[in-house]
Amino acid sequence: MNPVLGVCYYPEHWPEDLWERDAARMSEVGIRYVRIGEFAWSRLEPTPDNLQLDWMIRAVDVLGRHGLKVIIGTPTATPPRWMIDKHPDMLPVDANGHVKGFGSRRHYDFSHLGYRDEAARITRILADALGDHPALGGWQTDNEYGCHGTTYSYSDAARLGFQHWLEEKYGSVETLNKAWGNAFWSMDYNRFDQIGLPNLLVCEPNPIHALDFRRYSSDQVAAFNKVQYDILKARMPDLPVIHNFMSRYAEFDHFDLAKSIDVASWDSYPIGHLAVSDEPDEIKRLYMRQGDPDNAAFHHDLYRSVGHGRWWIMEQQPGPVNWAQFNPDPLPGMARAWAWEAFAHGAEVVSYFRWRQAPFGQEQMHSGLLRPDSEPAPGYHAAAQVSAELQKANFGGDMARGRVAVIYDYQSEWAWEIEQQARGFSHGGHVRAIYSAFRKHGVDIDVLPSTTPSFEGYDIVAIPALLAWTVALRDAVNTFEGHLLVGPRTGSKTENFSIPKGLGPDLPQNLLDAKVTRVDTIPPGLAVTVKGGGASQLWREKVETRAKVVMEDSEDVPVLIAQGKLFYMTSSGDRALVQRVVDYLIAEANLPTLNLPAGVRSRVRGDFRVYVNYGSSPATLNAAADEAGYVVGGPEMEPAGVTVARLATAD
Amino acid sequence: MNPVLGVCYYPEHWPEDLWERDAARMSEVGIRYVRIGEFAWSRLEPTPDNLQLDWMIRAVDVLGRHGLKVIIGTPTATPPRWMIDKHPDMLPVDANGHVKGFGSRRHYDFSHLGYRDEAARITRILADALGDHPALGGWQTDNEYGCHGTTYSYSDAARLGFQHWLEEKYGSVETLNKAWGNAFWSMDYNRFDQIGLPNLLVCEPNPIHALDFRRYSSDQVAAFNKVQYDILKARMPDLPVIHNFMSRYAEFDHFDLAKSIDVASWDSYPIGHLAVSDEPDEIKRLYMRQGDPDNAAFHHDLYRSVGHGRWWIMEQQPGPVNWAQFNPDPLPGMARAWAWEAFAHGAEVVSYFRWRQAPFGQEQMHSGLLRPDSEPAPGYHAAAQVSAELQKANFGGDMARGRVAVIYDYQSEWAWEIEQQARGFSHGGHVRAIYSAFRKHGVDIDVLPSTTPSFEGYDIVAIPALLAWTVALRDAVNTFEGHLLVGPRTGSKTENFSIPKGLGPDLPQNLLDAKVTRVDTIPPGLAVTVKGGGASQLWREKVETRAKVVMEDSEDVPVLIAQGKLFYMTSSGDRALVQRVVDYLIAEANLPTLNLPAGVRSRVRGDFRVYVNYGSSPATLNAAADEAGYVVGGPEMEPAGVTVARLATAD
Amino acid sequence: MNPVLGVCYYPEHWPEDLWERDAARMSEVGIRYVRIGEFAWSRLEPTPDNLQLDWMIRAVDVLGRHGLKVIIGTPTATPPRWMIDKHPDMLPVDANGHVKGFGSRRHYDFSHLGYRDEAARITRILADALGDHPALGGWQTDNEYGCHGTTYSYSDAARLGFQHWLEEKYGSVETLNKAWGNAFWSMDYNRFDQIGLPNLLVCEPNPIHALDFRRYSSDQVAAFNKVQYDILKARMPDLPVIHNFMSRYAEFDHFDLAKSIDVASWDSYPIGHLAVSDEPDEIKRLYMRQGDPDNAAFHHDLYRSVGHGRWWIMEQQPGPVNWAQFNPDPLPGMARAWAWEAFAHGAEVVSYFRWRQAPFGQEQMHSGLLRPDSEPAPGYHAAAQVSAELQKANFGGDMARGRVAVIYDYQSEWAWEIEQQARGFSHGGHVRAIYSAFRKHGVDIDVLPSTTPSFEGYDIVAIPALLAWTVALRDAVNTFEGHLLVGPRTGSKTENFSIPKGLGPDLPQNLLDAKVTRVDTIPPGLAVTVKGGGASQLWREKVETRAKVVMEDSEDVPVLIAQGKLFYMTSSGDRALVQRVVDYLIAEANLPTLNLPAGVRSRVRGDFRVYVNYGSSPATLNAAADEAGYVVGGPEMEPAGVTVARLATAD
Repeated sequence: MNPVLGVCYYPEHWPEDLWERDAARMSEVGIRYVRIGEFAWSRLEPTPDNLQLDWMIRAVDVLGRHGLKVIIGTPTATPPRWMIDKHPDMLPVDANGHVKGFGSRRHYDFSHLGYRDEAARITRILADALGDHPALGGWQTDNEYGCHGTTYSYSDAARLGFQHWLEEKYGSVETLNKAWGNAFWSMDYNRFDQIGLPNLLVCEPNPIHALDFRRYSSDQVAAFNKVQYDILKARMPDLPVIHNFMSRYAEFDHFDLAKSIDVASWDSYPIGHLAVSDEPDEIKRLYMRQGDPDNAAFHHDLYRSVGHGRWWIMEQQPGPVNWAQFNPDPLPGMARAWAWEAFAHGAEVVSYFRWRQAPFGQEQMHSGLLRPDSEPAPGYHAAAQVSAELQKANFGGDMARGRVAVIYDYQSEWAWEIEQQARGFSHGGHVRAIYSAFRKHGVDIDVLPSTTPSFEGYDIVAIPALLAWTVALRDAVNTFEGHLLVGPRTGSKTENFSIPKGLGPDLPQNLLDAKVTRVDTIPPGLAVTVKGGGASQLWREKVETRAKVVMEDSEDVPVLIAQGKLFYMTSSGDRALVQRVVDYLIAEANLPTLNLPAGVRSRVRGDFRVYVNYGSSPATLNAAADEAGYVVGGPEMEPAGVTVARLATAD
Repeated sequence: MNPVLGVCYYPEHWPEDLWERDAARMSEVGIRYVRIGEFAWSRLEPTPDNLQLDWMIRAVDVLGRHGLKVIIGTPTATPPRWMIDKHPDMLPVDANGHVKGFGSRRHYDFSHLGYRDEAARITRILADALGDHPALGGWQTDNEYGCHGTTYSYSDAARLGFQHWLEEKYGSVETLNKAWGNAFWSMDYNRFDQIGLPNLLVCEPNPIHALDFRRYSSDQVAAFNKVQYDILKARMPDLPVIHNFMSRYAEFDHFDLAKSIDVASWDSYPIGHLAVSDEPDEIKRLYMRQGDPDNAAFHHDLYRSVGHGRWWIMEQQPGPVNWAQFNPDPLPGMARAWAWEAFAHGAEVVSYFRWRQAPFGQEQMHSGLLRPDSEPAPGYHAAAQVSAELQKANFGGDMARGRVAVIYDYQSEWAWEIEQQARGFSHGGHVRAIYSAFRKHGVDIDVLPSTTPSFEGYDIVAIPALLAWTVALRDAVNTFEGHLLVGPRTGSKTENFSIPKGLGPDLPQNLLDAKVTRVDTIPPGLAVTVKGGGASQLWREKVETRAKVVMEDSEDVPVLIAQGKLFYMTSSGDRALVQRVVDYLIAEANLPTLNLPAGVRSRVRGDFRVYVNYGSSPATLNAAADEAGYVVGGPEMEPAGVTVARLATAD
Repeated sequence: MNPVLGVCYYPEHWPEDLWERDAARMSEVGIRYVRIGEFAWSRLEPTPDNLQLDWMIRAVDVLGRHGLKVIIGTPTATPPRWMIDKHPDMLPVDANGHVKGFGSRRHYDFSHLGYRDEAARITRILADALGDHPALGGWQTDNEYGCHGTTYSYSDAARLGFQHWLEEKYGSVETLNKAWGNAFWSMDYNRFDQIGLPNLLVCEPNPIHALDFRRYSSDQVAAFNKVQYDILKARMPDLPVIHNFMSRYAEFDHFDLAKSIDVASWDSYPIGHLAVSDEPDEIKRLYMRQGDPDNAAFHHDLYRSVGHGRWWIMEQQPGPVNWAQFNPDPLPGMARAWAWEAFAHGAEVVSYFRWRQAPFGQEQMHSGLLRPDSEPAPGYHAAAQVSAELQKANFGGDMARGRVAVIYDYQSEWAWEIEQQARGFSHGGHVRAIYSAFRKHGVDIDVLPSTTPSFEGYDIVAIPALLAWTVALRDAVNTFEGHLLVGPRTGSKTENFSIPKGLGPDLPQNLLDAKVTRVDTIPPGLAVTVKGGGASQLWREKVETRAKVVMEDSEDVPVLIAQGKLFYMTSSGDRALVQRVVDYLIAEANLPTLNLPAGVRSRVRGDFRVYVNYGSSPATLNAAADEAGYVVGGPEMEPAGVTVARLATAD
């Protein structure tokens, strides 16, 4: 299926007499999907049980008449004010014990079962009222789970739920005490109901206490979603159920939740995401109006994996947003280029947020495809251009498996937030650094979960900074015949957040004869240079090993060791070192690469290669041997330019 | 009336046998006004209804015998400890929901009506006991409303008061839902009693929710003050009622409160104010011992407007203070220069804080005119010098209207704190930047409220970063024949904090045919240069316009556009750009200027022009054509030097 | 007695069948003391009154069989979970009013008398069960009082206790009002039960309110300790009772608590302490893997004084720790060098923390002498080396009194935290700066409390930044015949935190005819240079004096004045200025010094001088006239090198 554009629309924000003209213009601009409803509960049910669904049905009618397919969002991210009167204890509680009140959004506690029932009720009502509508194209559950740090609540409901979850998991408190190592600091419990949440302590909690609370909280998000999914699938088995994830909010396991969705989607705001990221100031300056050239791409690959191969952009930044400290206008053309990058990574739909800029409420400064006065904003023209180009390119092949994969693991994100040992050490940071180093060479990458049972077909797989081996991953490693890059810190813990008996990286001697015996963490500005180029920063392990030393630092500490095709990296590298290590692996694995100009990135989909120029200057593409001409653009790329080449292999 | 000096005195801090000698020395040094009593409640009423006013009457007697006029402060800023026993819920609550306790000052909630009655009671008691005293020169209500962030309280009293205020304002909850745009995020209310305060939410509140809470809170401060004013005026109609505002605490509308005062006053601490300001480090270093050369002047002009033309300095910094992170000693002479700057701007009284440095309590490190051992501190000699000079200069003419005015609007301050869009964007910052650019040329400026009905008589008026047009201001603009500088961001919202239908700056086409269609906000260090000099920083609008483009930036985005005499500035300029724009307007309006040396500033009062050298180096004045010799100092100015020239026009 | 090594051991963390081998290896490595038990309450009393002491007795048996002496820690720093069920209000409350829960350690309130009784009960039980054990070497009370900021609790128990303490201290509320200066801001109280804790106020509390609360809180820590001490001494008068202080946690008076201990000990983590210190980044970079060369030494001298001459290191860093933002690996050899530095300062025992790295709980990343897999970590070899060297050196003489002393005063630390006036101004910072300036010359220094009754025998005594004179200290100053360095800020307050009538430094005219009349505090980067070298920074006093001006700054403000042998320093000097002042005093006092290479420090104990090279480069010692050869090392020192010279005087 050729990919298409979508848009987010709020009929409840506008006089009904605007709807028809809006729908007509959407259709004209080439939009095919319209998401509505996800914040409309107070207009669907203004008072308890007083249902007002007619307007929504009329809105879907109008949209449908213009050939648009509608995605209906269940409105559970914004329970109306009367719901708080009904369930006063459903409000979330922050880590300081303060109840978060009504007046914005996501004001509910995932552990509150009464609200979970209310969410099921409104979902059922919508499914009954709209499930048969011919314009219905699918469902979105809730909106942006976890956004604003809402995965965690420190409420009584969460405490009771957590105690119950622990009892289910450990069976007896003695087992828990042993698994948690509660002999340490006399932390033994006598009963499950004594176990509190890991907030407001004198000093840091036991890391497994913190990690189990994160696991529990993640499970509640998944359970909340499953309730809606089950209702929607029972009613309309053929319509896709989607959730719009928020890349940055990794507090729940997106892979795990995705057991109860059919298609993953995510909300892509490249400029704001760069602004709030940990990237160095130099990168933030360089890509202020473009966003980081690899960050959105990484998440495209991640959510393709989360979505079992099917994914959308549910919200695409169309212009300046409102929620970062500074909200620059994108470089002219970026609203088009971002869409192309997403399509190149396999997106079925790219849906801009939002149709018309809202003149009221919290997001007045968030641009839309239309200005508040209904005139076209630059995003409108970008959408029209993308629609036209999509038809020209006859784009839409399937995504081939990449030759390189990197493991991304939510539990590892949580683990190293809990026990940093070096401020800024993170799982995702290591994953993305490796991802970028491959992508700079035009290599297409897959992002896989830690439950991946086999790496067959990949040339290179990277597993950096993983908390603990899963059974599946040990099997995948054991049977893998390609090149494997492991570490640093990978396998340094058990699932119970304790040090494995044989120490990290906890691999069988026949795979890697190495033990991490010491960890040296170092502040910024004191990186240890590596012979040949680059430096170790933040994290630096000392290993006892019989493996071959491939690289070592200026103090003769091994930085990259190898046993057969298994490579272990002992430190967090700066960009130069990570690039060197990746380059070394590419050479070892004899992997084909492209020679991309600075700022340009590429991705293959089906029979096409898409190039995007993230730089602020024009760039000239180097001819690639496997290409047979351009269907969009050409070798000379403007800033924010897009070039689509047809692959010769397609002939 | 010739301006005079005053001082703040705390008879309750000293043995009664010191009072006579203190009063004699005050008189000797030329002091004419003494403020007392504003923190003395626990000594006036040590236990409930046990009034001990005799000591205060004796203190006023003593002061009066030495020819001093006494301003009595109502002691409502420091309710005694027993008051909390009587009204436990009168304590303010911070934004985290924590009750702020007894043990410092301003520990009351403006929304608490029980305490408002207590404040009325003690005011009435003081008015009755002291209203006829011949030494009485006036009243000060409370002390420094809003100081320490006390305008806002998140208490039950505030919540109930806010709900009532909203009901009064909007009439029905349907009207409120519509005005607030509560369709957004399902924020609709069913009843007024469901509306909470805009704190402790999951993410940011609806901006109109936040702004209405700020309006409500401002109204409570005004209402609290009016209760005292009405009592005092009913008893002694001829004595002025004054409040001492705190420039930096703009959380309530000083213009609005001033409906219930006769004379405005403010507390001027130039060094501490610079230290806690947003000025760049370079300015802080340059003026560490002087304070910013324009900040106090701006507030002098502001409070002259707030006070309907009548204003005082109620507290003038006399030496180092105690409340900034660093508290430098002023440059020798600054205690004199600050007083002269205030008089030049029309101050009737400059009252130093305080007579003798307190050896106990929170402000032990705050200097006075006397040291704790009663010996003269440098401020004592400064005061004596000013007194002598005032008589020499025969100073004291009225303030002429300036030829330039700038609009300062409290609601706009609140609005852009609520919706910054660029961190650091503020209304006041824009106002002060323009003010300074004019003042560097020796231009005298008036600061006007947004309720100003006419600009008649002004050559140039500036209206930067104004939230929304008032009816009055629209009229003033419509009928104005001088040069008008508007923007950026002016008129970009309605009073209900939503985007106007026609977009900002929301002026009729015949005045300015321009629409702001896009806002680009940019982090520090990434300013966009403007052709000809200067740069746009923080805030940058893109406009659709038929007006003439006067300046544009390096990306051809218009920066200053003009239609007739109406100029619209689309960006936040750095100092160089603001100066260029102001210089352009000065040239267009053919406004006379002075050629002031670096660090020197001037102000005309009556027949005199006062020069102050804020620089750390000596400066030589350029002769001004309209001057006829010097009555204080001369053309050679030392650091902190003061020169007073007689105007030739006075002959 | 020759000093020896110890180690901290947690038998409850390991299978019992490991104990024997552990004990044997401890003995082999030369360890003589083993601390156990201080976190074991949940294993000693798993449920209320269900005592399980057998395992501990068996552990002591095993250790004793291998010739080890055991220090038993009372487990009161980690009350078990069931204790909270029994005393729900024993949990501490933070300054925001949030109760701190169970799940880490130190979760008790020193003001809670019910818990104080529980602590007495378990102490008595342990004393009864183990007091006669032949392997028992002494007791440790609790663990690290004050760690994690636990000296203060803002609970009801603390409030009631504070009110009672104030009533005991002041007798009547009138006396308190007068002593506190409560006329200021109407802070008068009518009854003691109206006095709250100094947290959650509108602005800062009265400084004496804050200081008295700190005094009260310090007293509660001492009282808590005394309960245990009295029980232990009553039962076993001859066994030493020790507490392990935490240098950085100065919120209670260590001298005062030490009235109820026999031997002081402290927990020395040089690298983490440098990381969390206020030292400039340059120093942090230079000594990242060594720790500050003077900080541990200072605390050695401090705790020797706290311990009435007897002191230990109870926990010595053996490798990387886990609690700083970055936790670097020490330079190879530092675990040895730190021990030698401690012994040189008179330590009886240096006990490494901990025997085996824990694979579970909060401190998994904290290294031990053994790795988690029981293999030797670098610290193991360091310990073995120190043991061997100690025997070679036949080290162990008594500590001679130094010729220089510096006063360190806990109340002064608290006072200037309460009233900084210049951000970063601290008592301890001044003390350590002077200490380091002497130590750079190889001068041995004593650290004395402010209760020191006489300075007889010292050549030079320094008293910087002291809050207020004690009667004892005034006497010591009056009768001192050596050189005295006072100030800045010393004597600037009374014990009631008010300015003394005669102003600071509040010394009799015949000793020093000087009054501080003005304080100028200045931000970083704006230091005022001193003629001849160095600069005044942060704090700068102007004095009225007839004393001789020894140094003055570029604005002619006296920086060092002298009257006879009494010197007063008016400013906070940068390193260069402090060194100049100290050098001047050394010259005046004709004090012998050493010529130490950069990075090298020395200390004399008995007949030996110990040198440690803290630098990252090798260093060559200059021969000292009083030495007669080396017993450990020699004149060429590696980084982290140790050289022990025998003094000729010993022959």
